[in-house]
Amino acid sequence: MFDFWANLVSAIAATLTTLAFVPQALHIIRHKETRAISLWMYITFASGVAAWLTFGIMIWNWPMMIANTITLSLALAILGMKIRYG
Amino acid sequence: MFDFWANLVSAIAATLTTLAFVPQALHIIRHKETRAISLWMYITFASGVAAWLTFGIMIWNWPMMIANTITLSLALAILGMKIRYG
Repeated sequence: MFDFWANLVSAIAATLTTLAFVPQALHIIRHKETRAISLWMYITFASGVAAWLTFGIMIWNWPMMIANTITLSLALAILGMKIRYG
Repeated sequence: MFDFWANLVSAIAATLTTLAFVPQALHIIRHKETRAISLWMYITFASGVAAWLTFGIMIWNWPMMIANTITLSLALAILGMKIRYG
């Protein structure tokens, strides 16, 4: 029973912290403007997510691998747009 | 030996994904401008980090509790500034 709730809460958490970057990416695509976005945030964040992905591979945990691959792609897309439009 | 590397990689990951929001918060404090920041990103992200914090409390894992408390504070500060300056 505890495992059910722990898995549910972590699945909700992983989904929200991953999908959060979708509206940010769409916002930049729509407005082609990134002045308020911090370059260092996305360099640091993408490095951290790459480390989480490495950890997910080390412990061979599929949800971690999938969630971090999606988050890393979104963070790199936002970083690329910051460099392009910044 | 595996535990040492797994702990090291996850500690680096947690540090980077938490500290990443510091330059973003400072960037907004300095420029008082948030047009490119997505309101929905920070609403969704803060909700997700709150769920990660709940999970950390459920499994009583101190590093998760500390990292997510810091990340949640930073995400809420950025959300507050988005609402204020947006």
